[in-house]
Amino acid sequence: MKKQPWPLDDVRHWLEPGPVVLISSYWQGKSNIMTLGWHTILEFSPSLVGCMISAGNLSFERIRRSGECVINLPDASMADVVAQIGNCSGAQTDKFATFGLTAEKSHQVSAPSIAECHANFECRLYDDAMVERYNFFIFEVVAARVKPQPVWPQTLHYTGGGVFRTDGDRLDRQKWFTRVS
Amino acid sequence: MKKQPWPLDDVRHWLEPGPVVLISSYWQGKSNIMTLGWHTILEFSPSLVGCMISAGNLSFERIRRSGECVINLPDASMADVVAQIGNCSGAQTDKFATFGLTAEKSHQVSAPSIAECHANFECRLYDDAMVERYNFFIFEVVAARVKPQPVWPQTLHYTGGGVFRTDGDRLDRQKWFTRVS
Repeated sequence: MKKQPWPLDDVRHWLEPGPVVLISSYWQGKSNIMTLGWHTILEFSPSLVGCMISAGNLSFERIRRSGECVINLPDASMADVVAQIGNCSGAQTDKFATFGLTAEKSHQVSAPSIAECHANFECRLYDDAMVERYNFFIFEVVAARVKPQPVWPQTLHYTGGGVFRTDGDRLDRQKWFTRVS
Repeated sequence: MKKQPWPLDDVRHWLEPGPVVLISSYWQGKSNIMTLGWHTILEFSPSLVGCMISAGNLSFERIRRSGECVINLPDASMADVVAQIGNCSGAQTDKFATFGLTAEKSHQVSAPSIAECHANFECRLYDDAMVERYNFFIFEVVAARVKPQPVWPQTLHYTGGGVFRTDGDRLDRQKWFTRVS
C-alpha cells in the first residue's frame, strides 16, 4: 500500500508510544540498518526526536558524518528481522540484501527508506551537543510517510532479554482532555 | 502487594517500551504529580533516563530546583487518573488528594512515591545541560521498586488525541540474540 505524507508536527503519534525502530543510514556508498529502542520525541514543531545511538554501532559514525538517517517503523510481523538486524553488524553484513528488505529512495535525505516498514521518518541531525557525552543525537524529521492501512498496526516494544511486547487495546480518554494534544 | 527492589541497571525493562509515567515531585512543602510520555533510557549503569518536561508545567521549576523526582509507572487500570492528572495544574489542585493517591515516603529522595503505581523509580538530576535549550532533564535512578505481580502488567502508551494503547502479546525472540541485553 502506497504511503501517504504524515504531518511533521504529529510524528509523536507513532514514536511516543515507544516502538522499536529501524534506523537506516548511508555513508560513502554504503547503506546500513540498526535496531533502536532508546528514543523520545522532544518537540512538535520543529519535529524533533532524540535517539541514543551507542558508539559501538557502525551506524554511529556514519550518521554523525552524514548528518542524516531515516527512522523506519516496523510492525510486529517483522519481529524476526528486527531481532536479527540488532544482532549482527553492517561491517560483515549487507542488511538490506540479507534480510530481503527494499531500499527505497528517500525524498530529503541520502539514507534509504525501508519500503517494508509501516512508516518512514526522514531525519537530519539538528543538534549534536549531546553526542560526545551521551551518544544522544537530536534529529529533525524533515519528511514523514505512513501507510494508510492498518490505521492501528501492531508495533514492537522491547523489554530486554530478547522479549518484545506488541500493542494491545486502544483506550480513548478524550473526555478528560481540556486541550487535545 | 509489597514492592521489591529492582536492579538499577535493568530499569529499561519498564521504561524502554515507552509507557506513560507519572512524575512526582516535592518542593518547599508541596508535592505535585504530572503525566509524561516523552522519555528515554540513556544508559544502563549509571541508570540514566532522559525526560522532556515542558517548561509550562508547574513541575518543571520544582524538579529543577529540588533536583529530584520519582518516575512512577501506572498500569492501564489507572487510565482515567493518568488522563486527568495530565489535564489539570498543581497550582489549583492537590493531585494526591483529588485523585485519591497515596504519597509514600521515598527512600533516597524527598519527592514522594505513588503507592498505587506498579513501580517507583527514585531519581536525582544527573545533568541539566539540556534543560535550558530542550527542557530535557537527565536523571539518574537511585532506587527502584516494583510489584512482584503481575509480572507483565498492562501499561499505557500515548498516541495523542486523548488515545492510549495498552500492551499486547509477548513475543520472545531470544533465539536471535547473540548476547542478551
